[in-house]
Amino acid sequence: MTNSIAIVGCGLVGRAWSIVFARAGREVAIHDPAEGGVEAALAWFDSTLPELAESELLAGCAPGEVRERIRAAPSLEAALEGACHVQESAPERVEVKAELYAALDRLAPADAVLASSTSGIPASAFTEPLAGRSRCLVAHPINPPHLVPLVELVPAPWTEPGVVERTAALMAEVGQSPIHLAREVTGFVVNRLQGALLAEAFRLVEDGVCGVADVDAAIADGLGLRWSFMGPFETIDLNSPTGVRGYCEMLGDLYHQLAREQADPRRWDEAIVARIEGERRAVLDLGAVPDRQAWRDKRLAQLVRAKREAGERLGD
Amino acid sequence: MTNSIAIVGCGLVGRAWSIVFARAGREVAIHDPAEGGVEAALAWFDSTLPELAESELLAGCAPGEVRERIRAAPSLEAALEGACHVQESAPERVEVKAELYAALDRLAPADAVLASSTSGIPASAFTEPLAGRSRCLVAHPINPPHLVPLVELVPAPWTEPGVVERTAALMAEVGQSPIHLAREVTGFVVNRLQGALLAEAFRLVEDGVCGVADVDAAIADGLGLRWSFMGPFETIDLNSPTGVRGYCEMLGDLYHQLAREQADPRRWDEAIVARIEGERRAVLDLGAVPDRQAWRDKRLAQLVRAKREAGERLGD
Repeated sequence: MTNSIAIVGCGLVGRAWSIVFARAGREVAIHDPAEGGVEAALAWFDSTLPELAESELLAGCAPGEVRERIRAAPSLEAALEGACHVQESAPERVEVKAELYAALDRLAPADAVLASSTSGIPASAFTEPLAGRSRCLVAHPINPPHLVPLVELVPAPWTEPGVVERTAALMAEVGQSPIHLAREVTGFVVNRLQGALLAEAFRLVEDGVCGVADVDAAIADGLGLRWSFMGPFETIDLNSPTGVRGYCEMLGDLYHQLAREQADPRRWDEAIVARIEGERRAVLDLGAVPDRQAWRDKRLAQLVRAKREAGERLGD
Repeated sequence: MTNSIAIVGCGLVGRAWSIVFARAGREVAIHDPAEGGVEAALAWFDSTLPELAESELLAGCAPGEVRERIRAAPSLEAALEGACHVQESAPERVEVKAELYAALDRLAPADAVLASSTSGIPASAFTEPLAGRSRCLVAHPINPPHLVPLVELVPAPWTEPGVVERTAALMAEVGQSPIHLAREVTGFVVNRLQGALLAEAFRLVEDGVCGVADVDAAIADGLGLRWSFMGPFETIDLNSPTGVRGYCEMLGDLYHQLAREQADPRRWDEAIVARIEGERRAVLDLGAVPDRQAWRDKRLAQLVRAKREAGERLGD
C-alpha cells in the first residue's frame, strides 16, 4: 500500500480536495468520467495555486510543487492504483453513487478507504450490497474544502470503527478539522445546524419582523464574529462567570419559550422565496453572482489566513 | 440641544458603549448609582484604551483623546444634561428599569432618546406609563459593543418612528451596524437566531449524534467562517448559480424534513446540562474562564481589525 489519494469526480469539490491533499505532501490521482472534466480541473489548478500561494494557503509549498503532486489518471483503474484513500465527489444522485461504488469496491486496493463527499446521501443508501462496505463512509466537506477545514465523518451502520479513525487521522494530518458522527442522521450535523438557523431566518422575514439584510447583519456583524473562532457551546460557556451551567440556569426558561415558538415547521413556499429573492436581487443582480462568489472565496482565504495568524499569536 | 451621550449604568455593557461613542468623537457622561461603579469604569478605560489603540480600534484617536471625551457625572441629573441620547445599561430587572425610566423621562432633555441595552425585556414592559414613552426603545448590543457592531433596535408599540430612525442614524454614524425590528418579539432577532442554533446543538448532544466539541468545530471551522462576513441568506444566495431561488428549489424538501424533525422543543434539564458542563470542564477549568474571556476579546479585536482590512481591500 502506498499513501496516495484518488480523487474521483473533478468538479468544484473534487478539485478543492486535490489541493488539500497535495499541499500536505500527498500524491494525488484525479479522474472524471465526463468529457473534459479532468482538463478543466487542471486549468483551474494553474490559475488557483498561485493565488493560494500569495495568500500563504499552500502550507509553504510553491504552486509548482503542489501541481506536480497531482496527476491526471487515464482511467478509474489507474486513478485507484496504490491509493490508500479514495475521495469520491461524483454527482449527488444515489443511482450514480451506487454504480460508482460497485466499481470502486471492485477496483480499489483492498485496504483503501472509500469516502464520499456527499452533503446529504447517507453511505448506507449506496454501499449496502458491497463486499467491502465496511470500508465506506461519508466525509462531507464544506465548500470549498481547501479554504474551510471542517469535514464531517458519517459512518454507515456497517462501517468499521477503524475506518472512521483512519479517515479522521488522515484529515487531521492534512490540516482539515474532522468531526465524528455516531450515526447517520438527516442532513448530518452541518446542515442540521444550518437548517435550524435558516428556518428561523425564513420565519422572521415571513412574519415581517425584519428584512433579509437585517438577518444577515445580525449574523455577519453580530453572532457570526465569535462563531468564526469559537462554537456556540464555547460562546455560552464564556458568557457566564459560572460557565455553561450558569448560563443555562439564567436563560433556560427564555430559550425554552423560544424553542416552543420555533416548533413551527414551514415549507418554503413561493411567497416567501419570492420575497427573499426580491430583497437579494435588489442588492445583487443574478448576473453578478459569479463575481460575488469570487469575492466570497477571496474573503474566505483572507479570513483563514488571519485566523491562523491569530491562533499562532494568541492561541486557539 | 447638544450632541452628547449619557451612559447610565457602567457595568461591562455601559463601559463598552462609552468607548463606542467617545472614539467616534462624541462627548460622553457616565453615571452609575452603585458605590464605586464609575471609578471601576474609569480604571477599565485606562487599561483598555491603550490595547484598543494598539489594535487600531480607536478610529485613529489616541487613548488620551478618547479618555478626555468621557466624564464621570456626579449625579444622574448631571449625566443627562445636554444629552441627545441616553444609553441605559442598568441591571436586567424590569422593576429596576421601570423606576429608572420614570427618572430618565423626568430629567432628560425633552428631545433626548432613551435607549435600553436590555437583551430581553421589551421596552413596553417598563415605559408604558411615561409621558415621554414615545422616545423610548430598545437598542440591544452584542457584548462587547466596542468590538461587535450589531445593534438591534426594537420599538415599543408607542415608540415614534422618527425615534427609531434617529437612533439608527446615530448608531451608523458611530460605526455600529443597526438593524430594525418591526415589533417586539420574544428574544428579539439575535437571541431568536442563537436560540434556534442552540436548540439543535443541545439536541445533537442529547441524542448522542456527536459531542460538544464536534458541534463547536462544525461552526468554528465550518459554517461560522462565511457567517462572519456574510449572513445566512447571502450564503445560500451564492450557493446556487440561480441564487436563493435555485437553492430553495434544490434543497427545500430537505430543509422542510429537517424543520419537522427539529419541531421538538426541549427543556435544558439537569442531565443534558451536566453532560455539556462535563465536556466543557474537561477542556476548560471554571477557574480559567476569566483568562479565556480575555483571550476571546483579543481574538475578537484581531478579527474585527482583519475584517476591516479585508473590506477595504476586497470590498464588503
